[in-house]
Amino acid sequence: MYPAKFEKLIEIYEKLPGVGAKTAQRYAFGLLDYSEEEIEEYIDALKNIKNIKRCRQCGFLSDDDYCPICKDEKRDASTIMVVAYPQDVVAIEKTGTYNGLYHVLGGLISSSKGTFPEDIAIDTLIARIEPGVKEIIIAVSPTMDGEMTALYLDKILKEKEVLVTRLAHGLPMGANLDYADELTLIKALDNRRQIKEE
Amino acid sequence: MYPAKFEKLIEIYEKLPGVGAKTAQRYAFGLLDYSEEEIEEYIDALKNIKNIKRCRQCGFLSDDDYCPICKDEKRDASTIMVVAYPQDVVAIEKTGTYNGLYHVLGGLISSSKGTFPEDIAIDTLIARIEPGVKEIIIAVSPTMDGEMTALYLDKILKEKEVLVTRLAHGLPMGANLDYADELTLIKALDNRRQIKEE
Repeated sequence: MYPAKFEKLIEIYEKLPGVGAKTAQRYAFGLLDYSEEEIEEYIDALKNIKNIKRCRQCGFLSDDDYCPICKDEKRDASTIMVVAYPQDVVAIEKTGTYNGLYHVLGGLISSSKGTFPEDIAIDTLIARIEPGVKEIIIAVSPTMDGEMTALYLDKILKEKEVLVTRLAHGLPMGANLDYADELTLIKALDNRRQIKEE
Repeated sequence: MYPAKFEKLIEIYEKLPGVGAKTAQRYAFGLLDYSEEEIEEYIDALKNIKNIKRCRQCGFLSDDDYCPICKDEKRDASTIMVVAYPQDVVAIEKTGTYNGLYHVLGGLISSSKGTFPEDIAIDTLIARIEPGVKEIIIAVSPTMDGEMTALYLDKILKEKEVLVTRLAHGLPMGANLDYADELTLIKALDNRRQIKEE
Protein backbone atom coordinates (compact mmCIF):
# COMPACT_ATOMS: atom_id res chain seq x y z
CA MET A 1 0.00 0.00 0.00
CA TYR A 2 2.71 2.50 0.94
CA PRO A 3 5.54 3.44 -1.43
CA ALA A 4 8.11 0.60 -1.50
CA LYS A 5 10.79 2.70 0.21
CA PHE A 6 8.46 3.45 3.05
CA GLU A 7 7.41 -0.20 3.44
CA LYS A 8 11.10 -1.11 3.62
CA LEU A 9 11.60 1.32 6.49
CA ILE A 10 8.62 -0.14 8.40
CA GLU A 11 10.09 -3.61 7.85
CA ILE A 12 13.45 -2.50 9.29
CA TYR A 13 11.87 -0.99 12.39
CA GLU A 14 10.00 -4.25 12.96
CA LYS A 15 13.37 -5.94 13.53
CA LEU A 16 14.07 -3.82 16.62
CA PRO A 17 13.50 -5.72 19.88
CA GLY A 18 9.86 -5.64 21.00
CA VAL A 19 8.60 -3.64 18.01
CA GLY A 20 5.45 -4.86 16.24
CA ALA A 21 3.81 -3.80 12.96
CA LYS A 22 1.80 -0.90 14.43
CA THR A 23 4.73 0.58 16.34
CA ALA A 24 7.07 0.20 13.35
CA GLN A 25 4.55 2.12 11.24
CA ARG A 26 4.36 4.88 13.86
CA TYR A 27 8.16 5.19 13.90
CA ALA A 28 8.34 5.38 10.10
CA PHE A 29 5.76 8.19 10.11
CA GLY A 30 7.64 9.90 12.94
CA LEU A 31 10.73 9.86 10.76
CA LEU A 32 8.91 11.84 8.06
CA ASP A 33 9.02 14.80 10.46
CA TYR A 34 12.81 14.61 10.94
CA SER A 35 14.83 17.42 9.35
CA GLU A 36 17.39 16.66 6.61
CA GLU A 37 20.08 17.29 9.20
CA GLU A 38 18.61 14.82 11.68
CA ILE A 39 18.42 12.16 8.98
CA GLU A 40 22.09 12.81 8.19
CA GLU A 41 23.00 12.35 11.86
CA TYR A 42 20.97 9.17 11.95
CA ILE A 43 22.79 7.76 8.92
CA ASP A 44 26.19 8.72 10.40
CA ALA A 45 25.37 6.99 13.69
CA LEU A 46 24.39 3.82 11.82
CA LYS A 47 27.58 3.91 9.73
CA ASN A 48 29.59 3.99 12.96
CA ILE A 49 27.75 1.18 14.68
CA LYS A 50 30.04 -1.53 13.31
CA ASN A 51 33.08 0.34 14.68
CA ILE A 52 31.89 -0.03 18.24
CA LYS A 53 34.02 -2.67 19.91
CA ARG A 54 33.85 -4.69 23.08
CA CYS A 55 36.55 -4.02 25.66
CA ARG A 56 39.10 -6.88 25.45
CA GLN A 57 39.29 -7.12 29.22
CA CYS A 58 35.75 -6.58 30.57
CA GLY A 59 33.44 -6.81 27.53
CA PHE A 60 31.88 -3.35 27.94
CA LEU A 61 31.28 -1.25 24.81
CA SER A 62 34.35 0.69 23.73
CA ASP A 63 35.82 2.87 20.98
CA ASP A 64 39.23 1.26 21.52
CA ASP A 65 40.58 -2.15 22.46
CA TYR A 66 40.14 -1.33 26.14
CA CYS A 67 37.27 0.67 27.66
CA PRO A 68 37.77 3.89 29.70
CA ILE A 69 37.02 2.06 32.97
CA CYS A 70 39.64 -0.66 32.44
CA LYS A 71 42.17 1.99 31.31
CA ASP A 72 41.55 4.19 34.38
CA GLU A 73 44.48 3.62 36.75
CA LYS A 74 42.60 5.24 39.63
CA ARG A 75 40.13 2.38 39.72
CA ASP A 76 40.59 -0.43 42.20
CA ALA A 77 41.76 -3.41 40.17
CA SER A 78 41.44 -5.77 43.14
CA THR A 79 37.63 -5.85 42.83
CA ILE A 80 35.69 -7.15 39.83
CA MET A 81 31.91 -6.82 39.59
CA VAL A 82 30.32 -9.44 37.35
CA VAL A 83 27.23 -8.24 35.43
CA ALA A 84 25.11 -9.76 32.67
CA TYR A 85 24.87 -6.82 30.23
CA PRO A 86 26.67 -3.55 29.36
CA GLN A 87 23.54 -1.67 30.51
CA ASP A 88 24.18 -2.94 34.05
CA VAL A 89 27.61 -1.27 34.08
CA VAL A 90 25.95 2.06 33.32
CA ALA A 91 23.34 1.50 36.05
CA ILE A 92 26.05 0.82 38.66
CA GLU A 93 28.27 3.70 37.46
CA LYS A 94 25.33 6.09 37.88
CA THR A 95 25.26 5.36 41.61
CA GLY A 96 28.77 6.86 41.83
CA THR A 97 29.71 4.57 44.72
CA TYR A 98 31.66 1.78 43.03
CA ASN A 99 35.31 2.20 42.13
CA GLY A 100 36.35 -1.31 41.06
CA LEU A 101 36.38 -2.94 37.63
CA TYR A 102 33.66 -4.88 35.79
CA HIS A 103 33.20 -8.07 33.88
CA VAL A 104 30.32 -8.27 31.38
CA LEU A 105 29.10 -11.84 30.84
CA GLY A 106 27.03 -10.93 27.80
CA GLY A 107 24.08 -12.98 29.03
CA LEU A 108 22.98 -15.41 31.73
CA ILE A 109 22.96 -19.18 31.96
CA SER A 110 19.41 -20.15 31.01
CA SER A 111 17.70 -23.47 30.67
CA SER A 112 14.70 -21.86 28.94
CA LYS A 113 16.85 -20.07 26.33
CA GLY A 114 19.39 -22.89 26.13
CA THR A 115 22.33 -20.71 27.17
CA PHE A 116 25.18 -22.75 28.69
CA PRO A 117 28.18 -21.58 30.72
CA GLU A 118 30.40 -21.77 27.61
CA ASP A 119 28.06 -19.38 25.75
CA ILE A 120 28.83 -16.47 28.09
CA ALA A 121 32.13 -14.85 29.09
CA ILE A 122 32.95 -17.05 32.08
CA ASP A 123 36.30 -18.40 30.83
CA THR A 124 37.61 -14.85 30.37
CA LEU A 125 36.45 -14.03 33.90
CA ILE A 126 38.40 -16.98 35.32
CA ALA A 127 41.45 -15.87 33.35
CA ARG A 128 41.27 -12.44 35.01
CA ILE A 129 41.52 -13.83 38.55
CA GLU A 130 45.21 -13.23 39.23
CA PRO A 131 46.86 -12.86 42.65
CA GLY A 132 46.03 -9.12 42.90
CA VAL A 133 42.28 -9.75 42.63
CA LYS A 134 40.68 -9.98 46.07
CA GLU A 135 36.91 -9.80 45.57
CA ILE A 136 34.42 -10.85 42.91
CA ILE A 137 30.98 -9.22 43.33
CA ILE A 138 28.27 -11.15 41.53
CA ALA A 139 25.74 -8.52 40.46
CA VAL A 140 23.16 -10.38 38.38
CA SER A 141 19.40 -9.85 38.59
CA PRO A 142 17.63 -12.09 41.11
CA THR A 143 15.65 -13.89 38.40
CA MET A 144 15.62 -17.61 37.70
CA ASP A 145 18.44 -17.32 35.14
CA GLY A 146 20.33 -14.90 37.38
CA GLU A 147 20.17 -17.30 40.32
CA MET A 148 21.35 -20.17 38.16
CA THR A 149 24.28 -18.12 36.87
CA ALA A 150 25.22 -16.94 40.37
CA LEU A 151 25.12 -20.51 41.66
CA TYR A 152 27.37 -21.72 38.86
CA LEU A 153 29.84 -18.87 39.33
CA ASP A 154 29.93 -19.44 43.04
CA LYS A 155 30.74 -23.11 42.50
CA ILE A 156 33.64 -22.58 40.11
CA LEU A 157 35.01 -19.53 41.92
CA LYS A 158 35.30 -21.50 45.16
CA GLU A 159 38.42 -23.13 43.72
CA LYS A 160 40.08 -19.70 43.45
CA GLU A 161 41.58 -17.80 46.35
CA VAL A 162 39.17 -14.91 46.12
CA LEU A 163 36.27 -13.55 48.15
CA VAL A 164 32.95 -14.04 46.30
CA THR A 165 30.04 -11.75 47.29
CA ARG A 166 26.57 -11.00 45.93
CA LEU A 167 24.47 -7.85 45.90
CA ALA A 168 22.03 -7.81 48.83
CA HIS A 169 18.41 -8.75 48.19
CA GLY A 170 15.53 -7.26 50.11
CA LEU A 171 12.79 -4.69 49.89
CA PRO A 172 13.43 -2.05 47.25
CA MET A 173 13.62 1.48 48.69
CA GLY A 174 10.26 3.23 48.72
CA ALA A 175 8.36 -0.02 48.27
CA ASN A 176 5.25 -0.94 50.21
CA LEU A 177 5.79 -4.04 52.29
CA ASP A 178 2.39 -5.45 51.43
CA TYR A 179 3.10 -5.18 47.71
CA ALA A 180 6.37 -7.11 47.91
CA ASP A 181 6.30 -10.70 46.67
CA GLU A 182 6.84 -13.58 49.05
CA LEU A 183 10.38 -14.41 47.88
CA THR A 184 11.53 -10.82 48.35
CA LEU A 185 10.07 -10.78 51.86
CA ILE A 186 11.82 -14.05 52.75
CA LYS A 187 15.14 -12.60 51.48
CA ALA A 188 14.53 -9.37 53.39
CA LEU A 189 13.89 -11.31 56.57
CA ASP A 190 16.90 -13.62 56.07
CA ASN A 191 19.19 -10.64 55.50
CA ARG A 192 17.86 -8.53 58.35
CA ARG A 193 20.43 -6.37 60.14
CA GLN A 194 20.72 -5.03 63.65
CA ILE A 195 19.89 -1.36 63.90
CA LYS A 196 23.09 0.32 65.02
CA GLU A 197 22.91 2.58 68.03
CA GLU A 198 24.89 5.74 67.43
CA MET B 1 29.30 6.36 29.87
CA TYR B 2 28.91 4.61 26.51
CA PRO B 3 31.16 5.36 23.54
CA ALA B 4 30.13 8.70 21.98
CA LYS B 5 28.88 7.06 18.77
CA PHE B 6 26.64 4.78 20.74
CA GLU B 7 25.27 7.62 22.90
CA LYS B 8 24.45 9.49 19.69
CA LEU B 9 22.44 6.53 18.45
CA ILE B 10 20.47 6.34 21.71
CA GLU B 11 19.79 10.08 21.42
CA ILE B 12 18.44 9.62 17.88
CA TYR B 13 16.12 6.80 18.89
CA GLU B 14 14.77 8.98 21.70
CA LYS B 15 13.39 11.33 19.04
CA LEU B 16 11.03 8.66 17.70
CA PRO B 17 7.42 9.16 18.82
CA GLY B 18 6.75 7.65 22.24
CA VAL B 19 10.31 6.40 22.83
CA GLY B 20 11.93 7.14 26.22
CA ALA B 21 15.51 6.72 27.43
CA LYS B 22 15.18 3.03 28.41
CA THR B 23 13.54 1.98 25.15
CA ALA B 24 16.03 3.99 23.07
CA GLN B 25 18.86 2.17 24.85
CA ARG B 26 17.22 -1.19 24.18
CA TYR B 27 16.91 -0.36 20.46
CA ALA B 28 20.55 0.74 20.24
CA PHE B 29 21.64 -2.56 21.80
CA GLY B 30 19.29 -4.42 19.48
CA LEU B 31 21.06 -2.78 16.56
CA LEU B 32 24.40 -4.25 17.65
CA ASP B 33 23.01 -7.64 16.62
CA TYR B 34 22.13 -6.50 13.07
CA SER B 35 24.28 -7.90 10.27
CA GLU B 36 26.38 -5.57 8.09
CA GLU B 37 23.85 -6.17 5.32
CA GLU B 38 20.90 -5.17 7.50
CA ILE B 39 22.69 -1.97 8.54
CA GLU B 40 23.25 -1.20 4.84
CA GLU B 41 19.54 -1.69 4.13
CA TYR B 42 18.70 0.53 7.05
CA ILE B 43 20.97 3.32 5.78
CA ASP B 44 19.52 3.01 2.26
CA ALA B 45 15.96 3.28 3.56
CA LEU B 46 16.88 6.42 5.52
CA LYS B 47 18.56 7.96 2.47
CA ASN B 48 15.34 7.48 0.54
CA ILE B 49 13.03 8.91 3.18
CA LYS B 50 13.30 12.46 1.89
CA ASN B 51 12.24 11.31 -1.59
CA ILE B 52 8.86 10.17 -0.36
CA LYS B 53 6.27 12.68 -1.53
CA ARG B 54 2.68 13.44 -0.73
CA CYS B 55 0.15 12.89 -3.54
CA ARG B 56 -0.74 16.30 -4.99
CA GLN B 57 -4.39 15.41 -5.11
CA CYS B 58 -5.19 13.40 -1.96
CA GLY B 59 -2.14 13.84 0.31
CA PHE B 60 -1.34 10.12 0.66
CA LEU B 61 2.32 9.03 0.57
CA SER B 62 3.62 8.58 -2.94
CA ASP B 63 6.74 7.94 -5.02
CA ASP B 64 5.42 10.27 -7.72
CA ASP B 65 3.37 13.46 -7.90
CA TYR B 66 0.18 11.43 -7.77
CA CYS B 67 -0.41 8.27 -5.73
CA PRO B 68 -1.42 4.89 -7.26
CA ILE B 69 -5.01 5.29 -5.98
CA CYS B 70 -5.57 8.70 -7.59
CA LYS B 71 -3.94 7.47 -10.82
CA ASP B 72 -6.12 4.35 -10.97
CA GLU B 73 -8.84 5.02 -13.56
CA LYS B 74 -10.91 2.07 -12.32
CA ARG B 75 -11.62 3.85 -9.05
CA ASP B 76 -14.88 5.72 -8.62
CA ALA B 77 -13.94 9.42 -8.74
CA SER B 78 -17.44 10.48 -7.68
CA THR B 79 -16.80 9.48 -4.05
CA ILE B 80 -14.15 10.99 -1.78
CA MET B 81 -13.45 9.60 1.68
CA VAL B 82 -11.96 12.15 4.05
CA VAL B 83 -9.48 10.74 6.59
CA ALA B 84 -7.10 12.31 9.10
CA TYR B 85 -3.88 10.37 8.39
CA PRO B 86 -2.24 8.25 5.65
CA GLN B 87 -2.47 5.24 8.01
CA ASP B 88 -6.27 5.47 7.78
CA VAL B 89 -6.13 5.03 3.99
CA VAL B 90 -4.25 1.77 4.52
CA ALA B 91 -6.77 0.60 7.13
CA ILE B 92 -9.71 1.22 4.78
CA GLU B 93 -7.92 -0.29 1.76
CA LYS B 94 -7.31 -3.47 3.75
CA THR B 95 -11.08 -4.02 4.02
CA GLY B 96 -11.18 -4.36 0.21
CA THR B 97 -14.71 -2.92 0.05
CA TYR B 98 -14.13 0.72 -0.89
CA ASN B 99 -13.50 1.77 -4.47
CA GLY B 100 -13.63 5.56 -4.31
CA LEU B 101 -10.86 8.12 -3.79
CA TYR B 102 -9.43 9.59 -0.58
CA HIS B 103 -8.53 12.92 0.90
CA VAL B 104 -5.94 12.98 3.71
CA LEU B 105 -6.39 15.99 6.01
CA GLY B 106 -3.02 15.49 7.69
CA GLY B 107 -4.54 16.04 11.12
CA LEU B 108 -7.72 17.04 12.93
CA ILE B 109 -9.07 20.34 14.18
CA SER B 110 -8.09 20.41 17.86
CA SER B 111 -8.62 23.00 20.55
CA SER B 112 -6.20 21.17 22.86
CA LYS B 113 -3.40 21.04 20.27
CA GLY B 114 -4.29 24.43 18.79
CA THR B 115 -4.92 23.03 15.30
CA PHE B 116 -7.24 25.26 13.25
CA PRO B 117 -9.10 24.49 10.01
CA GLU B 118 -6.42 26.33 8.00
CA ASP B 119 -3.72 24.04 9.46
CA ILE B 120 -5.12 20.92 7.79
CA ALA B 121 -5.91 20.18 4.12
CA ILE B 122 -9.50 21.46 4.05
CA ASP B 123 -9.03 24.11 1.33
CA THR B 124 -7.66 21.47 -1.07
CA LEU B 125 -10.66 19.26 -0.24
CA ILE B 126 -13.09 22.07 -1.14
CA ALA B 127 -11.16 22.65 -4.38
CA ARG B 128 -11.69 18.99 -5.32
CA ILE B 129 -15.50 19.19 -5.14
CA GLU B 130 -16.31 19.59 -8.81
CA PRO B 131 -19.62 18.69 -10.53
CA GLY B 132 -18.66 15.00 -10.95
CA VAL B 133 -18.23 14.47 -7.20
CA LYS B 134 -21.42 13.09 -5.62
CA GLU B 135 -20.50 11.94 -2.12
CA ILE B 136 -18.07 12.93 0.60
CA ILE B 137 -17.65 10.28 3.32
CA ILE B 138 -16.26 11.74 6.52
CA ALA B 139 -14.19 8.94 8.05
CA VAL B 140 -12.54 10.46 11.10
CA SER B 141 -12.21 8.78 14.51
CA PRO B 142 -15.13 9.44 16.88
CA THR B 143 -12.88 11.31 19.35
CA MET B 144 -13.33 14.88 20.59
CA ASP B 145 -11.07 16.27 17.85
CA GLY B 146 -12.66 14.00 15.26
CA GLU B 147 -16.16 15.15 16.17
CA MET B 148 -15.11 18.79 15.98
CA THR B 149 -13.54 18.25 12.56
CA ALA B 150 -16.59 16.37 11.29
CA LEU B 151 -18.89 19.13 12.51
CA TYR B 152 -16.81 21.79 10.79
CA LEU B 153 -16.61 19.85 7.54
CA ASP B 154 -20.34 19.20 7.62
CA LYS B 155 -21.01 22.94 8.01
CA ILE B 156 -18.85 24.12 5.13
CA LEU B 157 -19.78 21.23 2.84
CA LYS B 158 -23.49 22.07 3.18
CA GLU B 159 -22.91 24.93 0.77
CA LYS B 160 -21.77 22.48 -1.90
CA GLU B 161 -24.11 20.31 -3.94
CA VAL B 162 -22.80 17.04 -2.62
CA LEU B 163 -24.02 14.29 -0.31
CA VAL B 164 -22.11 14.27 2.99
CA THR B 165 -22.07 11.02 5.00
CA ARG B 166 -20.21 9.69 8.03
CA LEU B 167 -19.04 6.22 9.00
CA ALA B 168 -21.57 4.52 11.27
CA HIS B 169 -20.90 4.41 14.99
CA GLY B 170 -21.99 1.57 17.22
CA LEU B 171 -20.78 -1.54 18.95
CA PRO B 172 -17.53 -2.85 17.52
CA MET B 173 -17.83 -6.40 16.17
CA GLY B 174 -17.00 -9.03 18.77
CA ALA B 175 -17.39 -6.58 21.65
CA ASN B 176 -19.24 -7.37 24.85
CA LEU B 177 -22.22 -5.09 25.31
CA ASP B 178 -21.54 -4.62 29.01
CA TYR B 179 -17.98 -3.47 28.29
CA ALA B 180 -19.05 -0.77 25.83
CA ASP B 181 -18.94 2.82 27.09
CA GLU B 182 -22.13 4.81 27.50
CA LEU B 183 -21.61 7.04 24.44
CA THR B 184 -21.07 4.04 22.18
CA LEU B 185 -24.25 2.42 23.50
CA ILE B 186 -26.25 5.62 22.90
CA LYS B 187 -24.91 5.79 19.31
CA ALA B 188 -25.64 2.10 18.79
CA LEU B 189 -29.22 2.60 19.97
CA ASP B 190 -29.72 5.77 17.91
CA ASN B 191 -28.47 4.04 14.78
CA ARG B 192 -30.41 0.79 15.29
CA ARG B 193 -31.63 -0.88 12.13
CA GLN B 194 -34.58 -3.09 11.35
CA ILE B 195 -33.62 -6.70 10.87
CA LYS B 196 -34.46 -7.49 7.28
CA GLU B 197 -36.63 -10.49 6.57
CA GLU B 198 -35.32 -12.41 3.64
